[in-house]
Amino acid sequence: MKKHAGGDLTEHRVSGEEVYGGVLLHVQRDAVRLPDGRVATREYIDHPGAVAIVPVLDDGRILLERQFRYPLGRVMVELPAGKIDPGEDPLGTARRELLEETGHTAREWRHVGTIHPLVAYSNERIELYLARGLAESREGAALDDGEFLETFALPLAEALTWVRDGRITDSKTVTGLLWAEKLLGGEWP
Amino acid sequence: MKKHAGGDLTEHRVSGEEVYGGVLLHVQRDAVRLPDGRVATREYIDHPGAVAIVPVLDDGRILLERQFRYPLGRVMVELPAGKIDPGEDPLGTARRELLEETGHTAREWRHVGTIHPLVAYSNERIELYLARGLAESREGAALDDGEFLETFALPLAEALTWVRDGRITDSKTVTGLLWAEKLLGGEWP
Repeated sequence: MKKHAGGDLTEHRVSGEEVYGGVLLHVQRDAVRLPDGRVATREYIDHPGAVAIVPVLDDGRILLERQFRYPLGRVMVELPAGKIDPGEDPLGTARRELLEETGHTAREWRHVGTIHPLVAYSNERIELYLARGLAESREGAALDDGEFLETFALPLAEALTWVRDGRITDSKTVTGLLWAEKLLGGEWP
Repeated sequence: MKKHAGGDLTEHRVSGEEVYGGVLLHVQRDAVRLPDGRVATREYIDHPGAVAIVPVLDDGRILLERQFRYPLGRVMVELPAGKIDPGEDPLGTARRELLEETGHTAREWRHVGTIHPLVAYSNERIELYLARGLAESREGAALDDGEFLETFALPLAEALTWVRDGRITDSKTVTGLLWAEKLLGGEWP
């Protein structure tokens, strides 16, 4: 039984190594010194970061995607999103992913905030953007190799109903939609 | 260059194995058949699921925690949360974690929804609960071995300001607070 620390909560790295280097995932395992001086193991996914975009059409509808997510074995409804390439500026990633996944460009970009999807075992951060002034590119979408998805549009109020009733459960999408409501409604100007 | 699938998006498992079995993390790597018939690799964390709790004190303040998150190298502000033990009912996990982490029991429990924190590479789901009628247990908190955290309380409006200005970025916490505002404000009764 441990009581609250009540002081410095920092864990200090003693040693560490990559224990799995895969196609997509890199797992790091470190020995850390705990606040009470003991040593413990910490394992986590080392991730380059990602972006997610709330694309708002001129009629107020939000562009969403249907994508099969193998870990869950089902199709999920999500905002456009993707991993930041090495050396890439996050806004550049956002422009690229919106175009590749939905075939749209945007005139107006706004950085909304940063979220951390899984602090217990991943260092991934997601930079969240609001995109307005959308236009369909003549090139159309150009998905990554092995990527399959469908794009559709939904009024924000309806998308929020889908959050409430469990048809949308992807965390970045739930956050993005709830945040967009605050921004577009003027509550968070 | 791939065009949209426009049909069945399902990926079918061909073969697979656990490629890393650690203290906390279990990584699965499967070969899957894509909608176009080709075979690709999918890697993901196999996770038993978790709960997160929005604990509302009688004066309306929300119980929050400060916890050092090693993957990010910093202290994060979070809702109480924890992993579902084998065979445990999620509500049981929620009661247990609230008591262990904050030293509180709750008279009134409400299941709010389910979120998926990282659909790209984890099958984790988080069951979100609202807890009211809180009381401090005489036993106090009893943290897991190697777990260090501090509990504090914040009015919901202030917690939402912390979301807006980036002091709260943990995804389950952002979602829980925005969702709680809808429930407690009567917008999502």
